[in-house]
Amino acid sequence: MKQFISTQDIDSVPKLVQIAKYFKASPHGKEHLGKNKTLGLLFFNSSLRTRLSTQKAAQNLGMNVLVMNVDEEGWKIEFDEGAVMNQGEQEHLQEAAAVLSQYCDFIGVRSFASLTDREADYEEKILRGFIRYAKKPVFSMESATRHPLQSLADVLTVEENKTVEKPKVVLSWAPHPLPLPQAVANSFLEWMKQTDCELVVTNPEGFDLSEEFTEGLEIVHDQCEALKNADFVYAKNWSSFENYGATTDAFSDWTIDSRKMALTNRARFMHCLPVRRNVVVTDEVLNSEHSLVIEQANNRTFAAQAVLYKFLQDG
Amino acid sequence: MKQFISTQDIDSVPKLVQIAKYFKASPHGKEHLGKNKTLGLLFFNSSLRTRLSTQKAAQNLGMNVLVMNVDEEGWKIEFDEGAVMNQGEQEHLQEAAAVLSQYCDFIGVRSFASLTDREADYEEKILRGFIRYAKKPVFSMESATRHPLQSLADVLTVEENKTVEKPKVVLSWAPHPLPLPQAVANSFLEWMKQTDCELVVTNPEGFDLSEEFTEGLEIVHDQCEALKNADFVYAKNWSSFENYGATTDAFSDWTIDSRKMALTNRARFMHCLPVRRNVVVTDEVLNSEHSLVIEQANNRTFAAQAVLYKFLQDG
Amino acid sequence: MKQFISTQDIDSVPKLVQIAKYFKASPHGKEHLGKNKTLGLLFFNSSLRTRLSTQKAAQNLGMNVLVMNVDEEGWKIEFDEGAVMNQGEQEHLQEAAAVLSQYCDFIGVRSFASLTDREADYEEKILRGFIRYAKKPVFSMESATRHPLQSLADVLTVEENKTVEKPKVVLSWAPHPLPLPQAVANSFLEWMKQTDCELVVTNPEGFDLSEEFTEGLEIVHDQCEALKNADFVYAKNWSSFENYGATTDAFSDWTIDSRKMALTNRARFMHCLPVRRNVVVTDEVLNSEHSLVIEQANNRTFAAQAVLYKFLQDG
Repeated sequence: MKQFISTQDIDSVPKLVQIAKYFKASPHGKEHLGKNKTLGLLFFNSSLRTRLSTQKAAQNLGMNVLVMNVDEEGWKIEFDEGAVMNQGEQEHLQEAAAVLSQYCDFIGVRSFASLTDREADYEEKILRGFIRYAKKPVFSMESATRHPLQSLADVLTVEENKTVEKPKVVLSWAPHPLPLPQAVANSFLEWMKQTDCELVVTNPEGFDLSEEFTEGLEIVHDQCEALKNADFVYAKNWSSFENYGATTDAFSDWTIDSRKMALTNRARFMHCLPVRRNVVVTDEVLNSEHSLVIEQANNRTFAAQAVLYKFLQDG
Repeated sequence: MKQFISTQDIDSVPKLVQIAKYFKASPHGKEHLGKNKTLGLLFFNSSLRTRLSTQKAAQNLGMNVLVMNVDEEGWKIEFDEGAVMNQGEQEHLQEAAAVLSQYCDFIGVRSFASLTDREADYEEKILRGFIRYAKKPVFSMESATRHPLQSLADVLTVEENKTVEKPKVVLSWAPHPLPLPQAVANSFLEWMKQTDCELVVTNPEGFDLSEEFTEGLEIVHDQCEALKNADFVYAKNWSSFENYGATTDAFSDWTIDSRKMALTNRARFMHCLPVRRNVVVTDEVLNSEHSLVIEQANNRTFAAQAVLYKFLQDG
Repeated sequence: MKQFISTQDIDSVPKLVQIAKYFKASPHGKEHLGKNKTLGLLFFNSSLRTRLSTQKAAQNLGMNVLVMNVDEEGWKIEFDEGAVMNQGEQEHLQEAAAVLSQYCDFIGVRSFASLTDREADYEEKILRGFIRYAKKPVFSMESATRHPLQSLADVLTVEENKTVEKPKVVLSWAPHPLPLPQAVANSFLEWMKQTDCELVVTNPEGFDLSEEFTEGLEIVHDQCEALKNADFVYAKNWSSFENYGATTDAFSDWTIDSRKMALTNRARFMHCLPVRRNVVVTDEVLNSEHSLVIEQANNRTFAAQAVLYKFLQDG
């Protein structure tokens, strides 16, 4: 595996899920595999789960870890080719990525969408820049358009909790006071498509995700209709792809509550966290035994461990 | 041991001091005990000694450590139950604590007093919130009302340096330009009460600590009177409990200097650090051979190691 | 070795280069030497290469590492003796250094020049303060006037890439939008003087470095003249020593470009990074096979490892 950004980088989603399951059962089963290997984790944005679970995964494999908040602790990075660097940016990505490749065997990068430049975001300018200039495998800890470690944990969570062979899985847009990236939603669809499920997306008009991710899927603009008979409800806010980065407070009735959950087939509730309680979803739903959000977070460790294992195996 | 906030969480102060002494003599005596255990350290506030000594203690025990500056590196935490999270807070304590419990075997939390809401501070709203929602043992790295790792180190330092069986130990208020929490002072009294000493508190009128901590103790408002025949002088500023969080510049003559130390029984000087030189205490006293402040800081490692050892022993 | 600030602290530059070469060939050749030793790294300024390569070096030697961004994560440090600390500074260097010596076996400090107080900078007030009060060996991760870990890596890089016994090495001033310290340039001269080379400095009038570092060297104010027949061109901006801390935009034609490199003896290009592309040096030069900047960064690990090895050996 040369990089880990999307499902295109791996042979098989089910096989990777099996590896994650192995590590969940035996977290220290390969505790010497990473000896003398160094993992570098670069954060351009906030992180709790990704930051800690990826470190934990590396420690479970016996790797050393170097963590860096790039902008605050290092230098402000210039991403444009050919830039005349007489402004605030102090170091070019070209050097940063090449230098990190001297110290690290594998490099994780978190860099959120700008939400202002759709083309740059959907070209994955920053992550692809790292990949281009790094001399070591790079993996996404959430990029502009995808969050594959989250999605792998999500697929594992559905796999562990499904009670029918082909569950109905509904990804539902939910309200939020600030505009958020589409990455988690895009990535969830991309990964769930590789599993045996009935996948439905529901969101208000104007909030359809990119066709790159919704192709072949049913998009339902009536949330209650979509939720009927759902086995899993995955709630997430995202800003508009069409009117790029725009948000709205017109759909505050899209909050997931018990009344809506009652339309489902006693569905399990999912969210990637952090979640704004009583905005995205009510306390009642989150506190119920139907919520899987903490287990999703737990599975992040084993998702990361599976990916690091693949990197270690491949060299 | 399920948690470590106050002396109520432990069987015996003297026994814990003995464990700390063992680790001071043999820092690597149990170097494999923490293998494959993960310690999470969460900082809501600045820290030097606590940050480094607790990491060091964990490393001495062979544990992995995950350190996080919560607000800066992660998300802003909402502590209120039932909050509608449409403001600046991004993640509820309920999820944060439960998620951290997935990655960590033990969780240390530093969260200072607000100094604006006495009831919330003295109910230990934040630390008790963590304990309520965490599924793993939580310990205080200084909470709103106590700093037990400091106090354990302080008790050890007195124990090591006393020359009489029942020393006179004076906790003295001292000047400071900013309002500070009462945590170190409260906690020092709570812990010293469990040892064989004559414990005296001296502070200006209006700066009496909570009766919860001073109960049974002599509070002397004449500093010079209090210092007479002291074997140990522990200086510390705290803001008013009565007029909650208020400070004053009316008592600048409460600085500990050589003239005041001359009233004592050649007392050893103590302070938890950081200390404002020539405000709380003069250079002359701090630089003298009577000062124990560096040894107190050294003992922080072994205090933390004793507490982590208890956690590891108990599961 | 009691400290590592300048070449005066070591027996022999060539011998230290040999140790660095050994670790480049065998990074894990002494992987148990640092067992149960703790390295503390204190950052008062931004860092990418130093931060990561020094951690990596320590991990290669089996040491534990404690990293701290002092001002942000700890307390604001007072450096003045006798200060009445009633202002913003919270902790005196005297305590900070002594306390760190309790937790760390070796202490690395990064503290840039103020560029406002030449006397304090050139007396190395901060680093010498640490050395004075620390009870453990202190090393520079770039101080006000020198950057010895960089220089050791630079000497190693020249050594590895020279094609003649006594290469011509030109240190050239280059443009920059902001005033920068003289540390890298000073230190490069100090270290290169200890090797067999023809060492030339070129800079605009008004930008001569301190005579302490240029003594015995040719200073050429005509950049093109200086570059003739160079085997190595080391570009670096520095602010004025004479008119202390001043910068200028009058010499934008000092950028290193292909036309200037054509004057050399097919010279290798060097820079300590981060570098502002198309200001200090053009893309064309940096992207060419003549550039050694990434190898310099790589050598930082082995420079740090050599220094830590010396510390470990000596106690």
